[in-house]
Amino acid sequence: MANTVLVETSARHVHLTEEHIEILFGKGHALTHKKDLSQPGQFACEERVTVVGPKKSIANVIVLGPARPASQVEVSLTDARTLGVEAPVRESGDVAGSGACKLVGPAGEVELTEGVIAAKRHIHMTPADAAEMDVKDKDIVCVKVETEGRTTIFGDVVVRVNENFALAMHIDTDESNAAACGRNQMGEIVMKKQ
Amino acid sequence: MANTVLVETSARHVHLTEEHIEILFGKGHALTHKKDLSQPGQFACEERVTVVGPKKSIANVIVLGPARPASQVEVSLTDARTLGVEAPVRESGDVAGSGACKLVGPAGEVELTEGVIAAKRHIHMTPADAAEMDVKDKDIVCVKVETEGRTTIFGDVVVRVNENFALAMHIDTDESNAAACGRNQMGEIVMKKQ
Repeated sequence: MANTVLVETSARHVHLTEEHIEILFGKGHALTHKKDLSQPGQFACEERVTVVGPKKSIANVIVLGPARPASQVEVSLTDARTLGVEAPVRESGDVAGSGACKLVGPAGEVELTEGVIAAKRHIHMTPADAAEMDVKDKDIVCVKVETEGRTTIFGDVVVRVNENFALAMHIDTDESNAAACGRNQMGEIVMKKQ
Repeated sequence: MANTVLVETSARHVHLTEEHIEILFGKGHALTHKKDLSQPGQFACEERVTVVGPKKSIANVIVLGPARPASQVEVSLTDARTLGVEAPVRESGDVAGSGACKLVGPAGEVELTEGVIAAKRHIHMTPADAAEMDVKDKDIVCVKVETEGRTTIFGDVVVRVNENFALAMHIDTDESNAAACGRNQMGEIVMKKQ
């Protein structure tokens, strides 16, 4: 169908600045490419950090590359409760006033005064996809995910259009589990507003 | 509005048989009432158990009373993945062929060959509520939950009607976090089928 998208689940992960990569992993360190992600240019790294909150820590959190202008920790709200941190629902990159935590790597530690967010549901697509689906950048849509016993319509899904994107909807592990999403889960854009 | 319900979040918990209570907590042990739950007759206990899966354990899981004909472990799918167990989406009490785990208490251990489930979304209501909302026992409805940035319509919600019930929808922590539900979150029955 013209309005269907692959629904991918993003596990907790960290984006780091060049400065923070050096503090956490050592002077002159560059991220080690492990696996390409679905979005062109984005990749999973060999590097891992521990995310430390006032309540608990979560070890072995994957770092995604490339380096970014601001460090960002994307967790589920289940994780946020475990850590004891605030994680406002935000679009990636919108970290002003978001949650605080400490990151611990093999070479050092970084105190983030902001950067912890729960990612806002979104769909990556090209201008051609957007034209075919009759949506545009920044539109808010609803996506229906049909599953065995947990069919769910996600509202507040942000459309993000860029020539370099690959068509895919991204949700976090809470959202994926809430809908009992499976591998190769498809969703359908059912409404332009909820 | 006539079709609104309070949405309550159920954290992971365990229901136990009389036999398992004695094995886990000692011969002749009776559950210790700590706090009434919203459904009349149901209560949180002082007792805690550790749920052990092949991958990890989760300690300090609350026991709910009273005792039941079959022991049952209700976890989120996030928990199920942590434990490394299967947790089919089921209505409470429907445990045949569901997931396996070990329970550990201060006096002993129980191997459950089945009983681990992820609870199916449901609404408890009285016959009077059902009449007002024009639904009946076992109906499947959709419930819209409006929140800041994570508005969600939950499909596959089972209506359960009983004179002893109090009006409330129950979802698990994954579902609650997926929708960023707050305290005193309300939902609205928007469709009788999804």
